[in-house]
Amino acid sequence: MEKITLEHIKTYLTGLQQTICTQLEQIDGKAKFVDDTWERVEGGGGLSKVIQNGTIFEKGGVNFSHVHGALPDVLKSESRDAQYFHATGVSIVLHPIHPFVPIIHMNVRYFCMSDEANGQIKDEWFGGGIDLSPAYPNEVDTLHLHRTLKDVCDTFDTSYYPTFKKWCDEYFTIKHRNEMRGVGGIFYDHLRPENEKEKAKLFSFMQAVGNSFIPIYQEIVQKNRAKSYSQQHKQWQFIRRGRYAEFNLVYDRGTHFGLRTNGRIESILMSLPPHAEWKYNFTPDENTEEFQTLPFFQPKHWV
Amino acid sequence: MEKITLEHIKTYLTGLQQTICTQLEQIDGKAKFVDDTWERVEGGGGLSKVIQNGTIFEKGGVNFSHVHGALPDVLKSESRDAQYFHATGVSIVLHPIHPFVPIIHMNVRYFCMSDEANGQIKDEWFGGGIDLSPAYPNEVDTLHLHRTLKDVCDTFDTSYYPTFKKWCDEYFTIKHRNEMRGVGGIFYDHLRPENEKEKAKLFSFMQAVGNSFIPIYQEIVQKNRAKSYSQQHKQWQFIRRGRYAEFNLVYDRGTHFGLRTNGRIESILMSLPPHAEWKYNFTPDENTEEFQTLPFFQPKHWV
Repeated sequence: MEKITLEHIKTYLTGLQQTICTQLEQIDGKAKFVDDTWERVEGGGGLSKVIQNGTIFEKGGVNFSHVHGALPDVLKSESRDAQYFHATGVSIVLHPIHPFVPIIHMNVRYFCMSDEANGQIKDEWFGGGIDLSPAYPNEVDTLHLHRTLKDVCDTFDTSYYPTFKKWCDEYFTIKHRNEMRGVGGIFYDHLRPENEKEKAKLFSFMQAVGNSFIPIYQEIVQKNRAKSYSQQHKQWQFIRRGRYAEFNLVYDRGTHFGLRTNGRIESILMSLPPHAEWKYNFTPDENTEEFQTLPFFQPKHWV
Repeated sequence: MEKITLEHIKTYLTGLQQTICTQLEQIDGKAKFVDDTWERVEGGGGLSKVIQNGTIFEKGGVNFSHVHGALPDVLKSESRDAQYFHATGVSIVLHPIHPFVPIIHMNVRYFCMSDEANGQIKDEWFGGGIDLSPAYPNEVDTLHLHRTLKDVCDTFDTSYYPTFKKWCDEYFTIKHRNEMRGVGGIFYDHLRPENEKEKAKLFSFMQAVGNSFIPIYQEIVQKNRAKSYSQQHKQWQFIRRGRYAEFNLVYDRGTHFGLRTNGRIESILMSLPPHAEWKYNFTPDENTEEFQTLPFFQPKHWV
């Protein structure tokens, strides 16, 4: 069995980025991704691919990055005496125009630490996940999301889906509101391979998650894109986008890690909605469509 | 000299809230403040006064609160063995509709710690400040703000203005963007009286700051409210409001303190703009009005 290297992982990730962008452009039918390469002074950089003002996508990004360098202080407690790190991954956030087409987020990442730039690995892990944030969740889409993710997980380990689904529900909770930012999905982090065989398995799992993105999202976009909607639906979408911004700015670890380690601001904050609203003490009236969305933002057993 | 008590401070603060609301209603001419009282399970509560959809004010709040109870863990490091705290203050944030009328923020607060609910005070301090966040800063308004605040400060201590002005510039910096959220003002915290005389002085200073709010803001509103503006001006206002939300959600200590200590969410997040936008990698072109605002968001000696 071939040993999995950082280069293998990067090759997969850059290919994934390209494939997903091509397919999202086909889904959108109008807007094209624009490339934006950037370098990090301390080492590494990335390629942000950004889409704006499409027929489906109001704003979105599919970002690849590989940053490396001296281990930042914020990570030293986990360091096992390592001095150098590499982090590589693909991050996606898409904000659709249509209030019935959900925001989707995906991230797959690999992190390793060593004594020196290309020294022996002292610690390494995989992380990632896919989750959906509809303004108007429905059962069909939510089941499709969770079933697909469960199938992906079960191929590797039947404990994965229940564990990572729960982790996702907890991670993406806006604690001060006691509600999730969306309907969940899966989230996992610090999956540490103990040997080369496990590393190969975790790399395959990364690929299975990455490759499930388009099958999951394409169906959901197509099912909802033609529905008619009103100004009231847009209004609720803006409120839910405000919650999305709240979560990302107050709680998201990736965002805070990026802001504290001199990450590229625009690539990190690409996740923020194009347009969000906050009304004072807004709660939907009972018997409205909006009121019926609220139970979806609480953890629930789906599959 | 009469000893200053928590009751004296609360009496001033509730009166200040009422006076400011009456005057803001006169300035707006249409919208009225709506009262919203709330209680904190662990002790205390507040009165939020909220204005929405006025001729001048799109969204704003003038909040009084007095919360008390067992000292939360997040404060225990500062506790000098005290077990009980009281915190009282008035907080204001106003988001005007007009892109040339600035967002204003004021807070004056008093904090004390003791062994038991009404026990002897073991530690106490005053904090507060006023700062302005215009989308289109101009020299006249910025000078008026800083001159008025310097006059207020100089009556008490000539070291106050330079110290608190610098503190404000630093505190209200969006670190990841290396820019201030506005044009500053004053900010101070942990002003600890060593004796009753100093406590009386600090309470007078609190009153002087609180009483300067209307004189500062009224003039700025009146000077700008009749200017004509375009969609481009609204656009930049939305971008600057996005920065305001970024600051408050990522950095503001008051916001994080409130979210972590089971504060009243809607009163804390009342500070968020009614409507904000994030564009990918947006920087104004040179030779535009927007480009000319950028130097104002860097610290500058005003008076």
